[in-house]
Amino acid sequence: MMKGRLYAMGVGPGAGDLITVRATRILARLDVLYAPAGRKGGDSLALSIVREYLLPHTEIRTCHFPMSSNGEEKQVVWDEVAQQLQNEVMEGRQVGFITLGDAMLFSTWVFLLARIGRQEWLEIVPGITSFAAIAARTVLPLAMEQQSMAVMSCTAPEAELEQALKAHDCVVLMKVYNRFATVRALLARLNLFEHALLMADASLPGEQCWRCLDQVAADQPLPYFSTILVNKQWHTKE
Amino acid sequence: MMKGRLYAMGVGPGAGDLITVRATRILARLDVLYAPAGRKGGDSLALSIVREYLLPHTEIRTCHFPMSSNGEEKQVVWDEVAQQLQNEVMEGRQVGFITLGDAMLFSTWVFLLARIGRQEWLEIVPGITSFAAIAARTVLPLAMEQQSMAVMSCTAPEAELEQALKAHDCVVLMKVYNRFATVRALLARLNLFEHALLMADASLPGEQCWRCLDQVAADQPLPYFSTILVNKQWHTKE
Repeated sequence: MMKGRLYAMGVGPGAGDLITVRATRILARLDVLYAPAGRKGGDSLALSIVREYLLPHTEIRTCHFPMSSNGEEKQVVWDEVAQQLQNEVMEGRQVGFITLGDAMLFSTWVFLLARIGRQEWLEIVPGITSFAAIAARTVLPLAMEQQSMAVMSCTAPEAELEQALKAHDCVVLMKVYNRFATVRALLARLNLFEHALLMADASLPGEQCWRCLDQVAADQPLPYFSTILVNKQWHTKE
Repeated sequence: MMKGRLYAMGVGPGAGDLITVRATRILARLDVLYAPAGRKGGDSLALSIVREYLLPHTEIRTCHFPMSSNGEEKQVVWDEVAQQLQNEVMEGRQVGFITLGDAMLFSTWVFLLARIGRQEWLEIVPGITSFAAIAARTVLPLAMEQQSMAVMSCTAPEAELEQALKAHDCVVLMKVYNRFATVRALLARLNLFEHALLMADASLPGEQCWRCLDQVAADQPLPYFSTILVNKQWHTKE
């Protein structure tokens, strides 16, 4: 019997060609692929990225991880999926799990990893982060030389965001979504508008970019994948 | 005449298959490729990554960017290469410039970009960062949920490194190289040994990993590409 393996793969920010060659080669030899879906029974963006690299025989299982604040409900789902993945491997199958962006940064995969642990049958494949894609697309560099970069979730306390914006040359503000008004006010107070830009749905067909945050209303509705890049050493209008 | 274009591409940490599909497709249609070399006339690690994706007709130009502290000497080289790249584009050629890791983070490319500026004939392709590759390879997650991550260069003042290690759950310490003794002492003082690991030459044939920094001598000679990952929420021996 063939030895089962689990491959956890970051598939990049959204464009089908911002995936690694390693991930495409692994995708082409999977028996089964697990893909997270935003809604129960809904489409999986990660799956849409990798479809062109899959062979017809690969079984696809979408799984929905509830975003609810109900910790117990989440635990049950993570426990179940982690157990399913391990069962498949024990049956000798080649199993894939895909996640947007990088596999180890702000990723659902890590909740499963916490249950599965380091195993010789586990291989993790890194992916392009959203902020690397945004920096490239908007031509706004991240840190260089002695500079530093902080990557923050806008769901963190505002004081932490402020501290990071003061301490680092470059700050990535992820999960802007419904925190935009707060973050916008913070950037205004710190006089950082000319060093900041906002990007939504980077590398996807609906990609949007705002280089002048002073011209974006505080109540502007934003897509779920919205990120602000700040680089104090660079002007975003340059 | 065909319109000239310049593609600045991050080619990932070192393994030939940790490059994006987009970069491989671009590489296969270049007239000329500029590759940075560590030493004058020396080999280019970035070039060794992409060789398998190049067609025979593509001209290869390795360029050496001096690491010297002589600012003027560097400026002259950057000015020259930036001018060469622009000249090639104006002649209608498809021009590539490759850089290790991501194109916009701690990258030589940004010195050229500062001279070239945003242009409609310029496209930047993001790459896998060394820390994403190290996190995947060592199965040590980066930040998740409300946590934060700082990416620091060990050439920064020690006080800044200490501040970052105190303020963030996850810290990437790049360019450890000849700063290891200082950084090791700092991690010991902050009691972070069990949350830290050291990796050299990630994804390359000579890859090395140390999970117990207390067992690494302060004067351990390290390869140029050495990085420490710290995650206060995770134990590196797990």
